[in-house]
Amino acid sequence: MISTTQRKPVSTNSTRPSNDLFLRACRREDVERTPVWFMRQAGRYLPEYRRVREKADFLTLCKTPDLAAEVTIQPVDILGVDAAIIFSDILVVPEAMGMELIVEEGRGGPRFPIPLRSRDEINKLGVPDPHAKLPFVMEAIKTARRSLNNRVPLIGFAGSPWTLAAYMVEGKGSKEFRLAKELLFSAPKDAYTLLDKLARAVAAYLNAQIEAGAQALQIFDTWGGLLGQEEFEEFSLRYIKQVLSLLKTDGAPVILFCKDCGHSLEKIADAGAGVVSLDWKTDIRKARDMIGSYVALQGNLDPVMLFAPPERIERGVRSILDKFGKGNGHVFNLGHGILPETPVEHAQVFVNAVKSFSPQYHG
Amino acid sequence: MISTTQRKPVSTNSTRPSNDLFLRACRREDVERTPVWFMRQAGRYLPEYRRVREKADFLTLCKTPDLAAEVTIQPVDILGVDAAIIFSDILVVPEAMGMELIVEEGRGGPRFPIPLRSRDEINKLGVPDPHAKLPFVMEAIKTARRSLNNRVPLIGFAGSPWTLAAYMVEGKGSKEFRLAKELLFSAPKDAYTLLDKLARAVAAYLNAQIEAGAQALQIFDTWGGLLGQEEFEEFSLRYIKQVLSLLKTDGAPVILFCKDCGHSLEKIADAGAGVVSLDWKTDIRKARDMIGSYVALQGNLDPVMLFAPPERIERGVRSILDKFGKGNGHVFNLGHGILPETPVEHAQVFVNAVKSFSPQYHG
Repeated sequence: MISTTQRKPVSTNSTRPSNDLFLRACRREDVERTPVWFMRQAGRYLPEYRRVREKADFLTLCKTPDLAAEVTIQPVDILGVDAAIIFSDILVVPEAMGMELIVEEGRGGPRFPIPLRSRDEINKLGVPDPHAKLPFVMEAIKTARRSLNNRVPLIGFAGSPWTLAAYMVEGKGSKEFRLAKELLFSAPKDAYTLLDKLARAVAAYLNAQIEAGAQALQIFDTWGGLLGQEEFEEFSLRYIKQVLSLLKTDGAPVILFCKDCGHSLEKIADAGAGVVSLDWKTDIRKARDMIGSYVALQGNLDPVMLFAPPERIERGVRSILDKFGKGNGHVFNLGHGILPETPVEHAQVFVNAVKSFSPQYHG
Repeated sequence: MISTTQRKPVSTNSTRPSNDLFLRACRREDVERTPVWFMRQAGRYLPEYRRVREKADFLTLCKTPDLAAEVTIQPVDILGVDAAIIFSDILVVPEAMGMELIVEEGRGGPRFPIPLRSRDEINKLGVPDPHAKLPFVMEAIKTARRSLNNRVPLIGFAGSPWTLAAYMVEGKGSKEFRLAKELLFSAPKDAYTLLDKLARAVAAYLNAQIEAGAQALQIFDTWGGLLGQEEFEEFSLRYIKQVLSLLKTDGAPVILFCKDCGHSLEKIADAGAGVVSLDWKTDIRKARDMIGSYVALQGNLDPVMLFAPPERIERGVRSILDKFGKGNGHVFNLGHGILPETPVEHAQVFVNAVKSFSPQYHG
């Protein structure tokens, strides 16, 4: 008998999932209806997720492939979304580079107790071999692919170099990320060194996810929107482009999500990803007019809309379908991750609304 | 002897300050150089402010006209800024409407221990007579005007209806203001009722500040940027317009600052204020191209830039002067409030740089 870890990768990115709406929409091919999934869909709003979390703390869950695969698949089984996204956290990459990462329950998110504060510390960081340092992610992808059994595609992901750097320098989440931004203004060369290392680490990590079986990728630039437009281009988008240039995706779509960066939509669309994910503050009609002829668009319902009554949620879904209009190249999603307090029934209303309303916008 | 409270208002908005660069720039008139001030310039980054705060907690400081006037004038004396802004807090308005307001030292900002959560509570709120409920602000304005002795103009201010509502419903500062936004989506009519009351309260309050001697006004929509574009227009900008339509400013300029709302710049410029204040994520060159022919622009250096070395700050100032270009209608400022940890010497570098570089862009 062959053990799990010795098996050949399930990869076979060429094996089309039976529901491949998401992949076709990413490629702006014909679809019968608009596909839908949620950012952060394997998460605390699901009672089934919370039950798994009773057995394991957050990082243990990330690092236990069977459990990570289990919660990855929950939203497919429970809500009927058209794609799964591997359960993990963007900060496992800095951890693999040598930084200690702590996630304490109910203590305001993950943190690095010894943040990056000097050139020496930046120079000491390694560019990790993801197979050696992050094998649990690749195992989780393989396990999830087997459990999904080609029902829907599986998405891999990583944080953008700047977003990872922001956490590494600041040490934790922050309103302004003042220390991280101070590095950009005060020591740009050190910032370049750090961001270049991160770009190489992220690219290797994403390539390993593709090899393990991920059928699409998403890059999260959660904190690009803290920067002025010039700094966004110099310190965030430039290194996202480096990542994209190093990817070997074998045709798997890449989604780029730069939150709060609507000011630079055309530059984001030119970065090289085939899909641009929009926050809820960007008008998807204007976005389609600007960039919709050469990239697909993902989004963009306000996550808070899922707290409104079902009729209001349905109206919100209809409004976005109307704004995007007829035709191909739209993946429905929220404009940011689903919030932990979201009522599951309302998430279901959202998925059902996309499925029932969207066919009239196609074919 | 006439007591302070019985004196006639110092108002005389017609009395030109000896340094009226700020007022002229707001009106897009000729200036010899670009005027400069800081949002939140009377604040914790100044040792002189911290010394006053040792005598009085935050709300006591707001409500003690002599002390409020004292800290209002500090940045004029210390840094040589071209305008003063009355020291106060936007949340004194909800307090005057009947909500209990608590500001505890080092406890994460002001909060309303009993937030607004029902139609009944909204209906119970009054539209306060500012002279009766907020006399300390008007007294502080009169005292500050006397102490300023027409050296530079004095700015009054208020929060926008939506920004005040966001705090009142949420009860405190928040990353997402989920509960406040939920009200907009779930009970828009209740939201309209609340926002209409706030618009009337804010307008009366700003008019009273003008009567007391404020020579310009700024409206802060700090949380407009949390909303999608349609919701921003429906729940924020609409009520800002209501405020503006109710103002009797006797020619005093009004500055409108909608943070993170670059997506709606033209609509903001059409709202009726003569000056639009830009956050640091909006390109001031593009903004001038779009709206600079009919409004003045204020801004927009990234507040974190003041943590960089002096040469970098100077380069940042130069870059914004270059982007705005030659000609009238620019008030230099940061793109948001000065941060409490900012080194005072760096704030001085910034002021000096604007004063020494900007003459070549004029005349």
